[in-house]
Amino acid sequence: MYQILKSISFCYGHRLLKYQGPCANLHGHNARAEITLASEQLDERGMVMDFGDIKSVIKTWIDDNLDHTMLLCKDDPLVAVLTDNQEKFYLMDKNPTAENIAELIFNYAEQQNFPVESVTLWESDTSFARFLR
Amino acid sequence: MYQILKSISFCYGHRLLKYQGPCANLHGHNARAEITLASEQLDERGMVMDFGDIKSVIKTWIDDNLDHTMLLCKDDPLVAVLTDNQEKFYLMDKNPTAENIAELIFNYAEQQNFPVESVTLWESDTSFARFLR
Amino acid sequence: MYQILKSISFCYGHRLLKYQGPCANLHGHNARAEITLASEQLDERGMVMDFGDIKSVIKTWIDDNLDHTMLLCKDDPLVAVLTDNQEKFYLMDKNPTAENIAELIFNYAEQQNFPVESVTLWESDTSFARFLR
Repeated sequence: MYQILKSISFCYGHRLLKYQGPCANLHGHNARAEITLASEQLDERGMVMDFGDIKSVIKTWIDDNLDHTMLLCKDDPLVAVLTDNQEKFYLMDKNPTAENIAELIFNYAEQQNFPVESVTLWESDTSFARFLR
Repeated sequence: MYQILKSISFCYGHRLLKYQGPCANLHGHNARAEITLASEQLDERGMVMDFGDIKSVIKTWIDDNLDHTMLLCKDDPLVAVLTDNQEKFYLMDKNPTAENIAELIFNYAEQQNFPVESVTLWESDTSFARFLR
Repeated sequence: MYQILKSISFCYGHRLLKYQGPCANLHGHNARAEITLASEQLDERGMVMDFGDIKSVIKTWIDDNLDHTMLLCKDDPLVAVLTDNQEKFYLMDKNPTAENIAELIFNYAEQQNFPVESVTLWESDTSFARFLR
């Protein structure tokens, strides 16, 4: 069994609803998303997938949608404010916790038919959340 | 399935009994304990647990018990010496290897009813021991 | 259940056959091989294995065979050229991808009767391939 991992750095803003503490305030993080793919067999080149192909597909989507962007829950009152002011944001059905951001990226990778096993989101150098099947 | 990890740094002294080599001497390490929790579902905030709650509980215990402290096996002749000299140490039933320190922290996290999956103890930047169920 | 990991750094040259892109050119990487061993029980010292024993066996083999060496597939036309010029290389049955190099080191560790669970080869700070049973 083989696994490969590609790490993609980006930064985002967010804030949490239903939360008591500093994460209720608007703030942001330098994040690292680690995409892990798994396969029982290698292709004719000896690869699970080319590292460059993971990067070009997932990094492009992250850069377009999440990087340097506020990630906001659809229930957040800021959504109307940022819309009125024509500021960029990314709307999530759920609270933009590290857990839910990891699952969001996992779902995108799966939609691209990548054999994704897990996505790990490092919110800082000492904290991660991971979504896996 | 979701996992979260919180990394907690501390430093400790130890030495190993029944061991031939430099680890038989009194010495110490800059260590990093990685606490991994797992859950099938998220709470209403979208979290396995708040990173800050892991940190406040586990880091407090590590700081009070293990940080800047000699970890000694109960059979170590130094136990009597340090006791006589009123020096701080932490008594372990087993040899204070990275494996047993990882299990010690795992057991503490489990006693706190954390959904702990594993504890990884990095003894250096190139070596870890992990205890998992 | 216990796991231990030892990380061993080395650098190698390679190039890939049947590949369109920059990895078809001769190039190289600063790599890190992470050897993970697993055991249900610890020995009388409280260890899966001494970190130093993993290092001395695996690092010696890597240093002798892979470090500062071109890793080439046996079908590579360069094999004849380097042979004629008495240049050092390491011959692989398969394409020298990160996946196949991880499996190569795994197989060596297994031949040494190490209870190896996986070998992870970091090809760069952002990409790894892992082989596991």
